[in-house]
Amino acid sequence: MRNILVIGAGRSASSLIKYLLDKSKEEQLHITIADLSLELAQKKTSNHPNAKPIAFDILNPEQRKEEIQKADIVVSMLPAHMHIEVAKDCLTYKKHMVTASYISPAMQELDAKVKENGLVFMNEIGLDPGIDHMSAMKIIDEIREKGGEMILFESFCGGLVAPESDTNLWNYKFTWNPRNVVLAGQGGAAKFIQEGTYKYIPYNKLFRRTEFLEVESFGRFEAYANRDSLKYRSVYGLDNALTVYRGTIRRVGYSRAWDILVQLGMTDDSYTIDNSEEMTYREFTNSFLPYHPTDTVEIKLRHAQKIDQDDIIWDKLLELDLFNADKNVGLKKATPAQVLEKILSEKWTLQPHDKDMIVMYHKFGYVINNEKKQIDSTMVCIGDDQTYTAMAKTVGLPVAIATLKILNGEIKTPGVQLPISKEIYTPILKELEEYGVIFKEIPVDYLGYNPLNVSS
Amino acid sequence: MRNILVIGAGRSASSLIKYLLDKSKEEQLHITIADLSLELAQKKTSNHPNAKPIAFDILNPEQRKEEIQKADIVVSMLPAHMHIEVAKDCLTYKKHMVTASYISPAMQELDAKVKENGLVFMNEIGLDPGIDHMSAMKIIDEIREKGGEMILFESFCGGLVAPESDTNLWNYKFTWNPRNVVLAGQGGAAKFIQEGTYKYIPYNKLFRRTEFLEVESFGRFEAYANRDSLKYRSVYGLDNALTVYRGTIRRVGYSRAWDILVQLGMTDDSYTIDNSEEMTYREFTNSFLPYHPTDTVEIKLRHAQKIDQDDIIWDKLLELDLFNADKNVGLKKATPAQVLEKILSEKWTLQPHDKDMIVMYHKFGYVINNEKKQIDSTMVCIGDDQTYTAMAKTVGLPVAIATLKILNGEIKTPGVQLPISKEIYTPILKELEEYGVIFKEIPVDYLGYNPLNVSS
Repeated sequence: MRNILVIGAGRSASSLIKYLLDKSKEEQLHITIADLSLELAQKKTSNHPNAKPIAFDILNPEQRKEEIQKADIVVSMLPAHMHIEVAKDCLTYKKHMVTASYISPAMQELDAKVKENGLVFMNEIGLDPGIDHMSAMKIIDEIREKGGEMILFESFCGGLVAPESDTNLWNYKFTWNPRNVVLAGQGGAAKFIQEGTYKYIPYNKLFRRTEFLEVESFGRFEAYANRDSLKYRSVYGLDNALTVYRGTIRRVGYSRAWDILVQLGMTDDSYTIDNSEEMTYREFTNSFLPYHPTDTVEIKLRHAQKIDQDDIIWDKLLELDLFNADKNVGLKKATPAQVLEKILSEKWTLQPHDKDMIVMYHKFGYVINNEKKQIDSTMVCIGDDQTYTAMAKTVGLPVAIATLKILNGEIKTPGVQLPISKEIYTPILKELEEYGVIFKEIPVDYLGYNPLNVSS
Repeated sequence: MRNILVIGAGRSASSLIKYLLDKSKEEQLHITIADLSLELAQKKTSNHPNAKPIAFDILNPEQRKEEIQKADIVVSMLPAHMHIEVAKDCLTYKKHMVTASYISPAMQELDAKVKENGLVFMNEIGLDPGIDHMSAMKIIDEIREKGGEMILFESFCGGLVAPESDTNLWNYKFTWNPRNVVLAGQGGAAKFIQEGTYKYIPYNKLFRRTEFLEVESFGRFEAYANRDSLKYRSVYGLDNALTVYRGTIRRVGYSRAWDILVQLGMTDDSYTIDNSEEMTYREFTNSFLPYHPTDTVEIKLRHAQKIDQDDIIWDKLLELDLFNADKNVGLKKATPAQVLEKILSEKWTLQPHDKDMIVMYHKFGYVINNEKKQIDSTMVCIGDDQTYTAMAKTVGLPVAIATLKILNGEIKTPGVQLPISKEIYTPILKELEEYGVIFKEIPVDYLGYNPLNVSS
């Protein structure tokens, strides 16, 4: 039996654990599921004979070292900042390691030692980062092998609600950390390069500079720019590409309405409201609007944001209950962002029978034989239920597949890795298809940003 | 002879030093002017027999202690964060101290020891903070003595260009630290209380929620909210006032145009632009606008910000040269705010014969005998020239007057102080009048925010 230690049994670990348990007999795997909550770990193992749930405290070094020593490979599904302690122990006891998180500078520092010991520390092998890297590099490599030169790369991803569960005006529900949704785009201008020119979008314009995306049989989506589109420019070998852009996908109309909340100041996380606990939703909304002795909060907001009464935005705001004078915020010394998260959670929480949906969209523009061409690659994945969500599948399955392939020596290049090489992405993308994670690649006309070559 | 040590001989020290030198004979003062630049110190002393300019390094503890020991009182005109070292030495050698800066937590901590030693550490006795405290508390105290109860306090201050030197479309020139002007309002929502309701204005709305102010014979001004209007609510005893608001004064139309720069993202100081050094002003402006193969930067900006061609805002932007394709930014790895500061400095720097102007405006609303009343108090001060600017006078003269009055035992309440008591403000405001710093107090109708008592 080979021992796999999975640390963290939260939402994103469901499909990961199921994959490993399903393979445990034929692959001779014994899986230890370690979580702070023994109950959660037990739930995920469902009495499987090859699984052992344990209560596990990552901050207890004795227990951590003991469990890591027993394992052949360690999967860390902890919050990103907690991986490094696991990584150091893995190095000490010479164990492979897998995470779905961005490579931190501290993790990167271990690279030389990880290589010396012939270990694989695979990171960024979830959805985004993860499937995005693999599905992009597959096509970029194919284009290069044909002799093409990349001139444009755009990549979009979004966690949304599945069409059959899409029941609100925003066409959105929380399928992941709600706080990150409320704070999306904050902390600096969005930066990208477009036709050779650096572009910066400040937060207060971010949700008004969207672009449309059509996905066959799913209709139209929109995307707003990610903070730093250029992070992987060098990693992907795109330093000479004229356009590199990454974005987040929403249904059309979400961003225009969300921008109203941004402009009002409701997404601000930089200060706390003294009397937030006793405030009603209506008072919360009013705190961002000028005082008036008689004008209603409604008309003040409509005037401040120039919203016509028959504008769908207005219905979206009403749907959120922002003007309710009976509901109390009930959060002590909360920031506006925290209050907004609470208000949204009442409306945007997935119901027991709701399904989520992941959408990914890549555009690859290239020149071959002096001709400009483009390939669009799209993937839509819909969740099975509230346990095996699309998010859990797309994050957990590549982690699980990579774990087994490292254990079996199929992925063996040592070091602190991310999945951008053929050795890694080819088998993993292939196996993901069996689980419904399928990219459709379609050659399209290269449009770029001046398709008609107009000069004025 | 009594020895006064003035540390820092920069712009704001001119009137301060002149005042002390002018009084030096009758008051038997010997003044040591200490600055990192001996040349600057010499310039400010102009060979006066009672003055001694010295080269002085605040970071040299031996020299600092030696000079402080020789003094009877120390005036620190250093940047705010540097006062604390001086203050500690003043405590050691039992010397009084005066600054024009906000009381830092570190300074406040010294209060008990300062009191024990019978010393006066007077702070916040420049313009804002300083003259604002004194002129406000004078009227607040008078209202209370009559039996009135404060219900509204609004206070505004601005450093502007004098009407005779007002030669650009923005009606603004830099009369103080340009960086602070570019970053004004950043770092959190503006917070105040209006008719009993807390109000928050996010940065991206700050310059669109202005209020008008009329000053006799100077015309109309506007004001935008300061970050924290409530800082002095308790200090002034205004915890029960329904409205407490502080703001910054500009000429009408400044804020509406400035907001365009904010909305574009040009005031952002949170990231650097990689290629800022080689960028032209036009490229800088274009970096905040979407790419288009043929549309000009001008039309893209006009469209993004919805500016008509005959809107004065457009002329203001043209005046700044934002579309100039020949001028280079020439700053390495600069933030947008740093680039903007450079662009503005070319247009907004005071010329040798320009004069500056300080405007202060307070509104005091109160109830007396069940009747609502209001007093407005205004002060306008115009600079003599580029040395004895309005800023230098209004910051430096109260510091100088307080210094002499502490030395003479007229101000003697010990501790870490700010000028809110009668003992301090009565004689200082009186003497300031001789120097042209005169408040006009006018009873006006109390309007509040529902003057007609409309109910719908």
